[in-house]
Amino acid sequence: MKERGILTVISGFSGAGKGTLVKKLVDEYDNYALSVSMTTRAPREGEIDKVHYFFISKEQFEENIKAGKMLEYAGYVDNYYGTPREYVEKQLEAGKDVILEIEYKGAMQIKKQMPEALLLFVTPPSAVELKRRLVGRGTETAEVIDKRMQRAIEESDVVDKYDYILLNDDLDVCARQAHEIIQNAKYSVSRTTDFIKEIRNELLQIAKGE
Amino acid sequence: MKERGILTVISGFSGAGKGTLVKKLVDEYDNYALSVSMTTRAPREGEIDKVHYFFISKEQFEENIKAGKMLEYAGYVDNYYGTPREYVEKQLEAGKDVILEIEYKGAMQIKKQMPEALLLFVTPPSAVELKRRLVGRGTETAEVIDKRMQRAIEESDVVDKYDYILLNDDLDVCARQAHEIIQNAKYSVSRTTDFIKEIRNELLQIAKGE
Repeated sequence: MKERGILTVISGFSGAGKGTLVKKLVDEYDNYALSVSMTTRAPREGEIDKVHYFFISKEQFEENIKAGKMLEYAGYVDNYYGTPREYVEKQLEAGKDVILEIEYKGAMQIKKQMPEALLLFVTPPSAVELKRRLVGRGTETAEVIDKRMQRAIEESDVVDKYDYILLNDDLDVCARQAHEIIQNAKYSVSRTTDFIKEIRNELLQIAKGE
Repeated sequence: MKERGILTVISGFSGAGKGTLVKKLVDEYDNYALSVSMTTRAPREGEIDKVHYFFISKEQFEENIKAGKMLEYAGYVDNYYGTPREYVEKQLEAGKDVILEIEYKGAMQIKKQMPEALLLFVTPPSAVELKRRLVGRGTETAEVIDKRMQRAIEESDVVDKYDYILLNDDLDVCARQAHEIIQNAKYSVSRTTDFIKEIRNELLQIAKGE
């Protein structure tokens, strides 16, 4: 059927375990590629250009934005961070399923620019467990907890813009489920329009030939 | 999360293997229940009421239609055939995932009445293979082939109203994929609104308490 890979965006509540989930997916299955972000901040020790980030100047980044070369971006402090379209496109064309771990504002930008992207939202398995992870073990300051809480409320407002909720109770189960959802998404009707057209053309040709 | 089962409608091209797929799903996994159709035709030898069909009179069937008790129905020759809502609801309430093998006109009625139903369309793995199965081994009359072809063309017009395309190349693979899609559909955002609401209420309560 379709050789082109699928772009999956993974967001989630603080403490839901997005990072370990993404790592497990990439380690466990060989079809995934991580997206590489672009930034204007200086490389830290050990960070390699084009591996950890694409490091570019502020001027170049702003040109990229104007030229529509960023799938999403945001400014933090004095720097830009974002996802360059070209790298993602190359991976998808090569048949890789690209995974992008990103917060909800970026996810909403991606959805607009690539409506065929699959959006997954990771959450602890219950409201009680979510509370436990947000509040922590009493070692966090009230300020930290408050910030997390405000963010979680904002996130809960946009969860319904995602495609699937992943309840991360057991990491193995959650990773397998994510893998199944991503692979099966290739057979969702909105992602198989070429195949449907081909079938239809074939049928019309046979009908004409009779 | 959700204890309620999910209703899955399975349609497909002639010769795509819907019947064997449905049988395999029911045999292989214990969470599925087949829907039982209702009909006004007389029972044939060996057919048991409420097992193979719900056998009822034409008058009763027409009353059911008026009362909105049929999820879908159609008239063939002098008889009605359809899916009674009550039986499906009972199974779903009991946590069973109900499977309904049905042609596309019925599927479209179901989609209207139960927008949360999952619609799967089974097809041979390629246009060439579809042609082979429709045309057969040269033992069919031109009339039979022509009828199949017309129907397949009609079906190909509505495939995009379904949720997923299942390519039935290897029955084992196809059944496992169908099972994954059905089970994961329970975590699609549109089917987890209760969970999302619960999480949101919990967050707002914590925020208030602080």
